[in-house]
This record gives sequence, C-alpha cells and structure tokens, in this order.
Amino acid sequence: MTNEMKIQCKPIGVVRADEKQGQYYLLIEPEYREGLLQLNQFSHVMIIWWADKVDNESDRKVLTTTLPYAKSEQAGVFACRSEYRPNPIAITTMMILDIDPDKGIITIPWIDAQDGTPILDLKPYLPCSDRIRDVQVAAWMSTWPEWMEDAGSFFAEHAVDFGE
Amino acid sequence: MTNEMKIQCKPIGVVRADEKQGQYYLLIEPEYREGLLQLNQFSHVMIIWWADKVDNESDRKVLTTTLPYAKSEQAGVFACRSEYRPNPIAITTMMILDIDPDKGIITIPWIDAQDGTPILDLKPYLPCSDRIRDVQVAAWMSTWPEWMEDAGSFFAEHAVDFGE
Repeated sequence: MTNEMKIQCKPIGVVRADEKQGQYYLLIEPEYREGLLQLNQFSHVMIIWWADKVDNESDRKVLTTTLPYAKSEQAGVFACRSEYRPNPIAITTMMILDIDPDKGIITIPWIDAQDGTPILDLKPYLPCSDRIRDVQVAAWMSTWPEWMEDAGSFFAEHAVDFGE
Repeated sequence: MTNEMKIQCKPIGVVRADEKQGQYYLLIEPEYREGLLQLNQFSHVMIIWWADKVDNESDRKVLTTTLPYAKSEQAGVFACRSEYRPNPIAITTMMILDIDPDKGIITIPWIDAQDGTPILDLKPYLPCSDRIRDVQVAAWMSTWPEWMEDAGSFFAEHAVDFGE
C-alpha cells in the first residue's frame, strides 16, 4: 500500500561549491526566498539535499555496502551515511556565515555536496531536537570526534587511514 | 532549470504510533529490511519522514508562519520546523530501543508523527556530523533545553505557555 505511494519533491535551490576558491553557498530560488525570514537568528542550518548523481534505478537498489573507512565491515544503508540508498536524501548541518535573503544566498564554510546539487529543504538546527547528550556509535567509529566542530581537522589528519 | 526538476521518492516503511498504549515503532517494508544491517550498533536514528497530511498544493505554498510557541513572531518555513513547507520532509532523531530486522521493526520511545506516516529514510546519528557544540538559536527559544534528552519534560511542563 505505502509501497505503491509516489512522493514528489521539487528543489528549492542548489548548492554552489567552488572547491578551488574554497567558496560554498546555497542559492535559493526566487519563489522560495521569503521562507528564509528569521533564519539569520540561528547559528546552524540543516541542509537536506538530493544526491542526484546517484539517483538512478541501480544505485537506489543498493541496500548494503562495504564501509570505505572500515573495509572489513559490511553495513546496511540505513546504518551509514552513504549516498547510495533507496531515496538518496542527505543531511548536512553547517554553520551559517551569512544570509542575503534578497539574493537567496546562504554562505557556509563547506559542504560535502557537489556543485549544482539540488536542495530539498532547510531547517534550523535546534539543540532540543537535534543535540543528543548520550550517544553510542558503531565500534568502527569509536575514535571519531564527539562534535561536528572537531570533524574537519580529524578527517584531514586521518584521510589516509580512511582510504581517501 | 532546477526549478523544472522533479524528484520522486518512495516510502521505505511507515510510522506506527499508538498514543493510548504509548507504543511507537517504525515498520520497514520487507524489500528494504536488509538495509537495517548494523543499525543496532547505534544508540540513535534520524528518521526522515514525509508529512503526508499536509502534502497538497496550498500547504506546500506556505512560506511564512506565525509561530505557535511565540505568537508575536513571524518566521519563514526554513527558520522553523513546521510541517507546512515546499517539501514536507521532517527529521526526528530518536533513541533506538530495539531492532528486529527480520520483522522490519525499530522500537522507539516516541515520535512526533502520526500513525501511518510514510518514512523516506533512516540514518545513524553521528556526533561528528550531527552534534554541534556551539549553537545559537532564535531569541524566542532561548530558554528551551540544550539537549534532546531534556525536551520531553520541558515541553510537558510548558504545554500551556506554548498554546497546546
């Protein structure tokens, strides 16, 4: 029944990523810019984006994967953040550096999405919903940082270990 | 251009919510259950669900809203967690109480979605991506809890203040 249901989304904007210049921003379509009102009251935004590069019949059928950062481990797609999944939705929480609501531009420090990636939604990051005090993660990531703020330097230092 | 793009999602399961009994679980469709492999290694799951009750042309056009918990404030839909938004996607992070991968059942303490709500995706909650140390929120929620674990009792105590 729900199996037959089809759900249609429309992009509200795109990711703009210039890796060489180190410039990253979200460009929101004119018709949705009014929805940015008061987002500047928040330090962080959850960016819900669509991994369009892997939006095809075969990539959507992937249900388990060998983890690139733990090659001896096989995990289900719902137990990792791989883009290969039945609905290739990704969630990235990022600091807001600047918002220009008239131009529909939200400047961010970085994002793990390619230039041109469609954005489906934006939400303010709320500690009372999104910040978990007591968390346990899988054994293969037990040494990973406990905070997003520490992730950049950690993964840069360990790039080789994680097969990048 | 991206404006013309249509994105199709398929539910991977549904929310089962029995408020009277206080029983809440996620029921994953048989064809997607293999994707649950190793999710039991994580304490918390991000549930990406589709607010199908407000999936209609007029509700999707809502771009600003009067906040139910701060009635003097008008905010854009990207600055609040209202279900009324261009793509009615919601994100709830919850503790995993139990997983039965064969039956496709993930038992959780509670969820703010109605019985029968379609689920689009599940992701493990990762501190290195999802846990922000230094967060600022809008003035109207400056007294709200700093942790998800403290939200239940806080909102129960303040139900009247928030117009519930």
